[in-house]
Amino acid sequence: PLLMAKAAVLTFLPILTWLPSYPVKQYLFSDVVSGLSTGVVQLPQGLAYAMLAAVPPVYGLYSSFYPVLLYTFFGTSRHISVGTFAVISLMIGGVAVREAPDSMFYTLPANGSNISAVLDVEARDAKRVQVAIVLTTMVGIIQIALGLLRFGFVAIYLTEPLVRGFTTAASVHVVISQLKYLLGVKTQRFSGPLSAIYSVKAVFSDITSANITTLILGLACIVFLYGVKDINERFKKKLPVPIPGEIIVVIVSTGVSYGLSLSEGHKVDVVGKIPTGLLPPAAPEFSLLPNLVTDSFAVAIVGFSMGISLAKIFALKHGYSVDGNQELIALGLCNFVSSFFKTFAITCSMSRSLVQESTGGKTQIAGLLASLVVLLVVVAIGFVFQPLPQTALAAIIMVNLLGMFKQFRDIPTLWKTSKIELAIWFVAFVASVLLGLDYGLLVAIAFAILTVIYRTQSPKSAILGHVPGTGMYCDLEEYEEAVEYEGIKIFHSNSSIYFANCDLYVNALKKKTGVNPEHLQAALKARKKQKEKVNYNHASPSKICVKGVTSEIVSNNHLMEEQRNCQSGEVHSVSDSEQSVFLKPPGDVTSIILDWTPVNFIDTVGAKAIKQEYAAVDVQVVIAGCSIGSTWSGLQVWLSTVAVSLEETIPSP
Amino acid sequence: PLLMAKAAVLTFLPILTWLPSYPVKQYLFSDVVSGLSTGVVQLPQGLAYAMLAAVPPVYGLYSSFYPVLLYTFFGTSRHISVGTFAVISLMIGGVAVREAPDSMFYTLPANGSNISAVLDVEARDAKRVQVAIVLTTMVGIIQIALGLLRFGFVAIYLTEPLVRGFTTAASVHVVISQLKYLLGVKTQRFSGPLSAIYSVKAVFSDITSANITTLILGLACIVFLYGVKDINERFKKKLPVPIPGEIIVVIVSTGVSYGLSLSEGHKVDVVGKIPTGLLPPAAPEFSLLPNLVTDSFAVAIVGFSMGISLAKIFALKHGYSVDGNQELIALGLCNFVSSFFKTFAITCSMSRSLVQESTGGKTQIAGLLASLVVLLVVVAIGFVFQPLPQTALAAIIMVNLLGMFKQFRDIPTLWKTSKIELAIWFVAFVASVLLGLDYGLLVAIAFAILTVIYRTQSPKSAILGHVPGTGMYCDLEEYEEAVEYEGIKIFHSNSSIYFANCDLYVNALKKKTGVNPEHLQAALKARKKQKEKVNYNHASPSKICVKGVTSEIVSNNHLMEEQRNCQSGEVHSVSDSEQSVFLKPPGDVTSIILDWTPVNFIDTVGAKAIKQEYAAVDVQVVIAGCSIGSTWSGLQVWLSTVAVSLEETIPSP
Repeated sequence: PLLMAKAAVLTFLPILTWLPSYPVKQYLFSDVVSGLSTGVVQLPQGLAYAMLAAVPPVYGLYSSFYPVLLYTFFGTSRHISVGTFAVISLMIGGVAVREAPDSMFYTLPANGSNISAVLDVEARDAKRVQVAIVLTTMVGIIQIALGLLRFGFVAIYLTEPLVRGFTTAASVHVVISQLKYLLGVKTQRFSGPLSAIYSVKAVFSDITSANITTLILGLACIVFLYGVKDINERFKKKLPVPIPGEIIVVIVSTGVSYGLSLSEGHKVDVVGKIPTGLLPPAAPEFSLLPNLVTDSFAVAIVGFSMGISLAKIFALKHGYSVDGNQELIALGLCNFVSSFFKTFAITCSMSRSLVQESTGGKTQIAGLLASLVVLLVVVAIGFVFQPLPQTALAAIIMVNLLGMFKQFRDIPTLWKTSKIELAIWFVAFVASVLLGLDYGLLVAIAFAILTVIYRTQSPKSAILGHVPGTGMYCDLEEYEEAVEYEGIKIFHSNSSIYFANCDLYVNALKKKTGVNPEHLQAALKARKKQKEKVNYNHASPSKICVKGVTSEIVSNNHLMEEQRNCQSGEVHSVSDSEQSVFLKPPGDVTSIILDWTPVNFIDTVGAKAIKQEYAAVDVQVVIAGCSIGSTWSGLQVWLSTVAVSLEETIPSP
Repeated sequence: PLLMAKAAVLTFLPILTWLPSYPVKQYLFSDVVSGLSTGVVQLPQGLAYAMLAAVPPVYGLYSSFYPVLLYTFFGTSRHISVGTFAVISLMIGGVAVREAPDSMFYTLPANGSNISAVLDVEARDAKRVQVAIVLTTMVGIIQIALGLLRFGFVAIYLTEPLVRGFTTAASVHVVISQLKYLLGVKTQRFSGPLSAIYSVKAVFSDITSANITTLILGLACIVFLYGVKDINERFKKKLPVPIPGEIIVVIVSTGVSYGLSLSEGHKVDVVGKIPTGLLPPAAPEFSLLPNLVTDSFAVAIVGFSMGISLAKIFALKHGYSVDGNQELIALGLCNFVSSFFKTFAITCSMSRSLVQESTGGKTQIAGLLASLVVLLVVVAIGFVFQPLPQTALAAIIMVNLLGMFKQFRDIPTLWKTSKIELAIWFVAFVASVLLGLDYGLLVAIAFAILTVIYRTQSPKSAILGHVPGTGMYCDLEEYEEAVEYEGIKIFHSNSSIYFANCDLYVNALKKKTGVNPEHLQAALKARKKQKEKVNYNHASPSKICVKGVTSEIVSNNHLMEEQRNCQSGEVHSVSDSEQSVFLKPPGDVTSIILDWTPVNFIDTVGAKAIKQEYAAVDVQVVIAGCSIGSTWSGLQVWLSTVAVSLEETIPSP
C-alpha cells in the first residue's frame, strides 16, 4: 500500500519524478534561454488575448503567470507552453459578451438632461471578468473530474479534420473580431449564431469612422511581424533564438504611442489602465454558473484536446510519454486554482510551444521561468504598457493566426484521401463560422460520429465459396477457384450488425442469396388460402393453385394476382409431397451460413431483424465464426435456435 | 419514359395499384366491419387526445377525419390505422403550452376594480390551436421532404430499446398530465425540463380542491375500460369484434352527465362547445414557425418511426411489403394537407391498428370507412358530446396507455440480453421523463449512437498462429495447434480503425506484439546522445552506453535514468554491428502483419496513428487481407509504403 500511495503521488505530482534527477549542468542553460524567450512571447500574447476574451489586458497577464507556474508541478509534457490561447480566449469572450452585452450597461446621466445614454464600460468589464473567471473555475472542475474519472479519451472524439476545420473557423472569428481594433472603428461586439456576419457588417457600415493613424500603425505592425516570422522560419538553423518580434512591436509601439501622444492627439485606442501587482485570491461569482455549464464543457474539451495533441507530438518526437488523464488533471488544476486569482481559461498554444521547444527547452523549468518573466512585468513595470495601442495587439493576434489559415490547404489533400473526412472538415468549419464556436463544435461532433455510423452501413458483402483442397473460403466473384456447395449459401458481410445497419444487412443477405422470405411468405399464404378454399368446397380436393415462386415476382400485389389467376381457372394438380417444395426458395437453397468472423457485436434489433425474416421459412440459417463475447451470452442463448458452431466449415482466423 | 412515369405514379398513389383489383366479394364485408369498429374507436380517442394536444376536442375529430381519408390514397400499409396518437399529441401539447402559456393570457377586468386578473381561455386556446396547426404543417413538409430525398432510413436511428424507453416516458407524462382531469383539480399545465415534477407537485399541493364526483366518475370509467380490455383479450377468438368499451364510456358518461346536470350541479368539467360541421380551409399562421422548427423535426421523426415500425410488423405478418419512403410521403401529405383544415399531427396508433387488423380489415378501405364514421359525427351529431365529462376522456387515455407500462418488463429481459441496450432504454426513459420529450429524444439518440462508437472501441484482438498443414490462421491463445513463425507477429483486431478507436488499436497492438516503438525510440535517442558525447570527447571512441531494452522499462523518466547510469561510469563496449541490434524489439520481432480482413474502413487519423508509431522503428509492418474499397485509393497509395498484399500468408477471409 505504501508503494501504491507513492506511485499515486508520483503520478499526481510528476515534478517529483523529474526534478530530483534534474541534470543541472546539461539542461539548466537551455531551459533558461528557452524560458526567457517564451516569457517574452507570453507577455504580448497575454495582453492581446485578453482582448479576445473581452476582459481588460491585465487579466491576460495574470493568466500568463499563475497557470504556467502551476503546470510546472502537475504537467507531464516537457515541451508545451501553457497559457493564453486564441481559440479558447475567443470562446470565453463569446460567452462573456453574451452574458454581459453592452445593452445591459447603458445608464442615463444622473441630471436627467436630454443627453443620450452612456455605456458604463467599467461595470460592463467588471461583469465580463466575473463571467470569464467563473467559467474558468467550472472548466477546471470539469477537467479535473474528467481526469479523475479517467475520461482522457474524450479528446479522441475530436478527430483531426474536425479540429482543423474548427480552429480554422475560430481563426476567421478572431480576425473578424480584431478588424475593428485594426481600423479603430467603435462597434458593438456580437455573440451567438451569425455573429461573424453581423460583426463584419457592423465594421464595414461604420468604416468611414476608421482612424487612419490606428490603421497605419496596425498595418505597419502586421508587416513587421510577418517579416520577422518569415526570417525566423528561413534562418531557423542559423539563429540561436528566434527574433522576438512580438515584444519588439509591443515596446516600439508603446514608445511611439507615448512619444507622439497618440491616445490624446490622434484618438488612437490604447490599452489603458494596467494596475501594478497581483490581486488577493477571491471566490468566483458562482451565481453566474447555471448559464455557463454547456460553455464550460466546450471550453474544457477543446482546451484539453489542443493540449494533449501537441503534448503527444512532442512526446513522440523526443521519446517520452505523456499521461492523458494526468494532463487533464494538470490543466484542470491550473484553471481551477488560478481562477481564484482572477485568470481566464488557458491551454497550450502551438506557436509558443514551438518557441519553447525550438529554443532548446528541455523540461518544465522553461515554463516556470517564462511565468516568472510575466510575474516581473506584472509586479514591477506593468504600467509601462499603458500607452500600448490596441491596434498593435490586434496585429499580433492576426499574424499569429496566419498559420491557422494554412489549414485551408487540407481541402485538396483530404479531397484526395477521404471525402468523408473532407465533409467533416467542412461541416466543422461552416457550422463554427455561422453558428458560433459552441454550437459549431456540437454540430461537428455529431456529424463526425454520424459518419462512423454511415460507414458501418456500407460494408462489403459477398457470397463465399470453398477453394477445393484448402480450408479457405473466398468471394465467389473474385476467385475463380472458389466453388459453392449445392443448396448452401455462405454470406459474408464486413461489419457488425446493429440497429442502424441491420436492415441493410438483411437486404444484402436477401439479394445475394436470392432467398426472399417475404415472397416465400406470400406464397405460403396464398397456398394456405387456396387450401382452405378447397377444403371448404369439398369439391376438388386434389386441385390446388400452385405457381412457381421465383425472385422475379416483386410487385406488391402479386398475392392478389396469384389469386386472380387461380380464380380464372388456372389450377394445377400437385401431390402433398410436392406442396412442401413450395416453400423452398429458388435454386433449392436449403441452408444459409452467415459468416460472422468480422461481426464484433450484434444488438437485439439486429438479431431480431435476422430471426424475424427467416423464422417461418424452410431455410436453415446457421452462424459460423461467432466471436461475440461473453457479455452477449444471453443473446447467444436467445439466438441458439439458429446458431450452430461451424468451425469445421469456416475457419475463424 | 412512359413506363417510368407510370411506375412513378403508381408508387406515389398506391391506391391505383390495389383498388382496380379490389376483390369486392371477398374483402368488402371484412373491411366494412373493421372500418366501423375502428371508427368507433377513432371517435373517443380523437376527443381525448385533443386534450393532450392542448386544443379543444373538436380539433381531435378533424384530425381523425382528414388525414385518415388521405392515407387511403397514399399509404402502402393495409392494416395500420392512422389518426391521433397519444405520444405525438402530447408532444404537440407541450409545444403549444410552451408557446402560449397561461401567463400570456391574463387580462385585467375593464372596470379596474380590485378583482384579480382573469384567464382569457378563448384567446389562449385559439393561440394554441394556431401553434398546433402550423407545427403540423411543418411536420408534413419535413416528412414529405425526407420521403422525396429517400431518407426513410432515418427511422433506424430510433432503435427499439430507445423507442420503448421513450414511449414509456411519454406514458408517464401522459398519465401525469391527465391526473388533474381525473381529480378535477384546476392547475396550470407545465412544459419544458422537469415539467413532469412540477405538474405532480402542482396537482398534489392542490389536492384538497379535488372534485369527488369527477374522481368517482373517472375511476368508474377506468375500472370499466380495464374490464372490457381484459375481456377482449381473454375472449379474443370467441368475440367476432372486440367490445367497443371506449364508445360505451363516452355515450354512457355523456348520458349521465346530461341527465344529472353534472356540469352545473356538481362542477364537473365537461368537454364543452363542439361546433357542428367542418371548417373552410385556411392558411396556417406561418409567423409562428421559427420557434417550432426543432420540435417539428422531433414530431416528424417520432411519428414516422411509430408508423413504419407498426406497418412493417403487419406487412411481415400478412406477407406484403411496405415502402418506407412512400410511407413517409404519405404521412407527410396527410399532415400537410390536413393542417389547412385545422388538424394536428397524426401517425398510426398501436391500439387502433390492432383493432383494425383483428376485426378483419384487409385494405385501406377499412381506414376510409373509419374516417367516414368520424365525419358523420362531426357534421351531424357532434353537439351531442358537449356534456361529456373530461374525466371520462382522461380515463380512456390512461387505460389506453396501460399497455405501454408493460414495457417496464423490458428491463429484466434487456438485463439478461444486453446491458448496453438496457442503458439506452434507461437513458431514453429518464431523459425523456426529466427533460421533456424533445430534449429527452435528442439525448437518447446521441447516447444510442455513442454506444455504437463505444462498441467499436472494444474489439476482440489476438495474435494469430498458423495451423500446420492448412491455410488457416487461428488465435494462439485459443488453439493449441497454431504456431508462430519466428520473428513474425500476426495481429488481428475485430474492428475498423478510425479516430475513436485507433489509439486503442495501437495500444492493443503494442501490448500483444510486445513491440513498443516509444521505448525503442527512447533507447535510440539515448544511444545517439551518448554517441555524440563520445565523439565530442574523442577520448573513448569504443565506450558506448548500451542497455538492453525490454518491455519492463515503463517509467516516464527511464531516459534520464539511463543517462545517469552512463554518467556513473556504467559503460559497456559494443561493436558497430551490435548497435544495430539495439533498435530491435524484444524477442527479435522483425515483422508485424496486420490482419485487416475485418477492417471495413480506416480514416486518416487511424492510418497516421499506425504509421507514426512504426515509422522510425526497424520493424516491418505489412497489411494482409486489405478489403478497403476503391474510394480509399488515395489512402491506400499513401499507405503503400507499408502495405503489401499478403494473400499467400493469410487467406481472405
